[in-house]
Amino acid sequence: MSYTAPVKDMLFVLSELSGIADIAKLPGFEEAGLETAQAVIEESAKLCGEVLAPLNVEGDRNPSSWKDGVVTATPGFADAFRQFAAGGWQGVQHPVEYEGQGLPKLIAAACIEMLNASNLSFALCPLLTDGAIEALLTAGSEAQKRTYVPKLISGEWTGTMNLTEPQAGSDLALVRTRAEPQGDGSYKLFGTKIFITWGEHDMAKNIVHLVLARTPDAPEGVKGISLFIVPKFVVNEDGSPGERNDVHCVSIEHKLGIKASPTAVLQFGDHGGAIGHLVGEENRGLEYMFIMMNAARFAVGMQGVAVSDRAYQKAVAYAKERVQSRPVDGSAKQAVSIIHHADVRRMLATMRALTEASRALAYVAASHCDFAHRHPDDAKRAEHQAIYEYLVPIVKGWSTELSIDVASLGVQVHGGMGFIEETGAAQYYRDARILPIYEGTTAIQANDLIGRKTVRDGGAVAQALLAEIAQTVEALKQHDGAAFASMHRHLSHGHDALQSVVAFVVANVKRDPNAVFAGSVPYLKLAGVVLGGWQMARAMLVAQAKREDDPSFYGAKIATAQFYAEHVLPQAVALEASIVSAKGADGVLALSEDQF
Amino acid sequence: MSYTAPVKDMLFVLSELSGIADIAKLPGFEEAGLETAQAVIEESAKLCGEVLAPLNVEGDRNPSSWKDGVVTATPGFADAFRQFAAGGWQGVQHPVEYEGQGLPKLIAAACIEMLNASNLSFALCPLLTDGAIEALLTAGSEAQKRTYVPKLISGEWTGTMNLTEPQAGSDLALVRTRAEPQGDGSYKLFGTKIFITWGEHDMAKNIVHLVLARTPDAPEGVKGISLFIVPKFVVNEDGSPGERNDVHCVSIEHKLGIKASPTAVLQFGDHGGAIGHLVGEENRGLEYMFIMMNAARFAVGMQGVAVSDRAYQKAVAYAKERVQSRPVDGSAKQAVSIIHHADVRRMLATMRALTEASRALAYVAASHCDFAHRHPDDAKRAEHQAIYEYLVPIVKGWSTELSIDVASLGVQVHGGMGFIEETGAAQYYRDARILPIYEGTTAIQANDLIGRKTVRDGGAVAQALLAEIAQTVEALKQHDGAAFASMHRHLSHGHDALQSVVAFVVANVKRDPNAVFAGSVPYLKLAGVVLGGWQMARAMLVAQAKREDDPSFYGAKIATAQFYAEHVLPQAVALEASIVSAKGADGVLALSEDQF
Repeated sequence: MSYTAPVKDMLFVLSELSGIADIAKLPGFEEAGLETAQAVIEESAKLCGEVLAPLNVEGDRNPSSWKDGVVTATPGFADAFRQFAAGGWQGVQHPVEYEGQGLPKLIAAACIEMLNASNLSFALCPLLTDGAIEALLTAGSEAQKRTYVPKLISGEWTGTMNLTEPQAGSDLALVRTRAEPQGDGSYKLFGTKIFITWGEHDMAKNIVHLVLARTPDAPEGVKGISLFIVPKFVVNEDGSPGERNDVHCVSIEHKLGIKASPTAVLQFGDHGGAIGHLVGEENRGLEYMFIMMNAARFAVGMQGVAVSDRAYQKAVAYAKERVQSRPVDGSAKQAVSIIHHADVRRMLATMRALTEASRALAYVAASHCDFAHRHPDDAKRAEHQAIYEYLVPIVKGWSTELSIDVASLGVQVHGGMGFIEETGAAQYYRDARILPIYEGTTAIQANDLIGRKTVRDGGAVAQALLAEIAQTVEALKQHDGAAFASMHRHLSHGHDALQSVVAFVVANVKRDPNAVFAGSVPYLKLAGVVLGGWQMARAMLVAQAKREDDPSFYGAKIATAQFYAEHVLPQAVALEASIVSAKGADGVLALSEDQF
Repeated sequence: MSYTAPVKDMLFVLSELSGIADIAKLPGFEEAGLETAQAVIEESAKLCGEVLAPLNVEGDRNPSSWKDGVVTATPGFADAFRQFAAGGWQGVQHPVEYEGQGLPKLIAAACIEMLNASNLSFALCPLLTDGAIEALLTAGSEAQKRTYVPKLISGEWTGTMNLTEPQAGSDLALVRTRAEPQGDGSYKLFGTKIFITWGEHDMAKNIVHLVLARTPDAPEGVKGISLFIVPKFVVNEDGSPGERNDVHCVSIEHKLGIKASPTAVLQFGDHGGAIGHLVGEENRGLEYMFIMMNAARFAVGMQGVAVSDRAYQKAVAYAKERVQSRPVDGSAKQAVSIIHHADVRRMLATMRALTEASRALAYVAASHCDFAHRHPDDAKRAEHQAIYEYLVPIVKGWSTELSIDVASLGVQVHGGMGFIEETGAAQYYRDARILPIYEGTTAIQANDLIGRKTVRDGGAVAQALLAEIAQTVEALKQHDGAAFASMHRHLSHGHDALQSVVAFVVANVKRDPNAVFAGSVPYLKLAGVVLGGWQMARAMLVAQAKREDDPSFYGAKIATAQFYAEHVLPQAVALEASIVSAKGADGVLALSEDQF
């Protein structure tokens, strides 16, 4: 099997770090305890390992193709999508009233990880459909919800998000697509959207495009953007797909990776106008899109975890099999499998530690989302929501940035074979490269982390998390041994570094915005390194308490945490130095434009 | 122009950091001063910018192809190679007596950088030919030198290095190719070699394969490997290519990058035996290969510098052109070109600082090689040779590892467009990935750095370099201002970190080899970061003294050095922590094989 879901590790994070037992106490989640999680995860693991994972290489070699406006997915994908839909997997986290399964986001997070680890290109179709569902549930009318959501959940139809235009990438203020009211409540849309993931394909009977556009009298900038539903086939009164709408795929991109996922250029209204319907109120499109984007950004963060794990699994398998050179300590007279060489071990441990830390942080974020939605106490809900929102840009930015490093190490472990496409390690390196770009680049995540998530509340959420980290640091002190000593030392330094940077950001953002934003991505990475390290420390404390029950499994948790403490956490101090000691912008902005 | 050689920057490094004026005082290099360097570099810049750079994308889209044993290079390559050869560029650093130009390696380094920046795939052919020339000059008989070297220098023929076999990658002890003596002084070779760069092609009349193989009674392991010349066409008495030899290209690889460069599987002796001639003495093949590999490893390090610079140039051009979003400091009411955004500026500054530092370190290494070859004083020669040898694995390992990060940042600067192959930024990300692998992986470089270069002399060379760094730290103290304060502080910390790691390596390598080798790559990176930072500091001191002469140019040197100090040098302390405080192997080796 080319991908084996790390079910035991996932369940460990669910039960020991993300409080699945407490989530099962929330109203509506009574059935969603560890047992349910295990059953769901094991079932998903089967589909992902047996059906989707083998198609991953196929999709890379035989990408989706375009001809005369028609996009044909990689052979095998349409059938796999039918199996995925039939299993109810699109509905895992969506409401029962629209025929979803109504499970916690925490369990869905594990399913999303497996889906993406097995086949990143394939998984993008459900990922974008999730986004469309979220947008409709957030802002759609009851009729819109009834018309579209069950069809999206059943997999009969799929969804897309249409934001980007050639001149409007990160800057949505520049969106130009027009929506002209027709007097009957409908609109006609005209414009070009690019980078539309799964914007056209043959896996479903209809495609529900959610499109940002401007109405004729809309104000300029982001305050004049509205959200529209534009289905590929206009939906009849009875809910069946009717006539072909005036939205056409004029080409798909030739990309570095995720080749099976068609990235479409969509032309709206070249033949009289694409019929669309307003979602929610006019000019509030960006606001709705942001709600949906938080979900999509979290999911892209999971993609980072997923591709890291896939790359790790492949590298471990190769390192155990490939025989080359004697060990430096003279422990064998013959060449040994390369996993016995210290540097290969270091690379694998790095891959493993980063994967585990980013997974744990993401799942913890998902659990905050569940508490934020279902906790009976208003104040608690708000508190969890604030933590979730603080964590989303970190999960998105950090998990995806590190996935490139992990995939790159995966190639390196394979040596020369890693550079040969048939080996397969290179695909992860290529695929991962999109993750820190789409759904908001790392810089966009970092701006969000600074602006909406740190400065707006004066650093309160960050401080609350720091206080929790400080408690963990205290708990580490109670244990003996090198592993705990290392984690105590480095997490403590990491805590201090993050605290100092948060204070710097809050104190200087108004007075010297360039200084603060010059350190935005380093701040995001620092937060990831420290919050990820905190999860590793929590895991280590649990593992120590349970060690006797399963010495190998819990021992590995402690060893991986120690490695993280010694090889990843030290970056925190270096990042702090770049942001704070350097007083931010001086070094970054000292070169003028023409000096570059 | 898609690549403009950074001539001014190169000449700055040559004259201010690498002592070109002193090199011109060495016997045989009297003509090789700054003026010659400038003339040579400007001429090379033309060929590279005008002829080779435009073929780079073409090679990626239309790779070299194999049919029935014949390899056809990308259209345009053969003609470009003729121009390259006609210009005398293959002979830049080779002896005049074999029709080379006899210029210092320092000037050659700049030429190698330009060649590789303009077209990495193309440049590999001359790079391997250089290796073959070095091997023949080192160990060949006078007749062999006369027969082969002038033809290789003229570009009539090209050369290859045949080390790797399917079971023998990093571990050459496992080489199995057989060489059977024929009684007439010749041998017949039988075996399979893989990963042979430009192992077969249509750009030259003959290909001179240098092949590692075992004679019948050779001892096992690396002590039983000999070096053979196996030309594609057996060479006639008169030096002309004669009958086709029994070495055939049975396939070429489908690779992640450097696609125009054919990577051949060569089959020796399937039709009776490939005629070969011993180079030097039997069983000393590895020793000769190592001499040649030092040159090749240095050149691969230059490839890292080169691809970094190319990626940097492309990213800067895009960042100046692409308009998106208003600046965070409110300095403009409209969207501005993205170079005005702090994080884009940070990414570009990172790319620039790493490129400049790795270039400076590599050129400085090259100048030590020149002094080592030509200095009239024996002791001085030995001293420079030792420094050169210490620097080679660092130049190779560090410059190539960072080139991946730089190329990856280059993609990121382009946002979504970076992921589209037509943009071209992705090619550098793919191409760069081979650099830390071939000619010895980073781990192999790091083992060399520890074993032969640090431990063997008890850390003496490293300490000598540290003493020089300490002097630079002192000199920085004499200057005021934030830039100098930052560099003083961080270079001082970097010095201490490197000193502590060198001491740790020397003290523990026998007692606890795993602990030391678990930190081998971190040590290599630390040495790169600190020695690169040292060059930036030296550049800064020169720039300060000359600032009035050219305020923009020298000001940029100071600003780039400050950025390096604040954003790159802090890694030194983190790397030291991973190696020393962690006591090395504990965290790395704590997980047993079956726990992965």
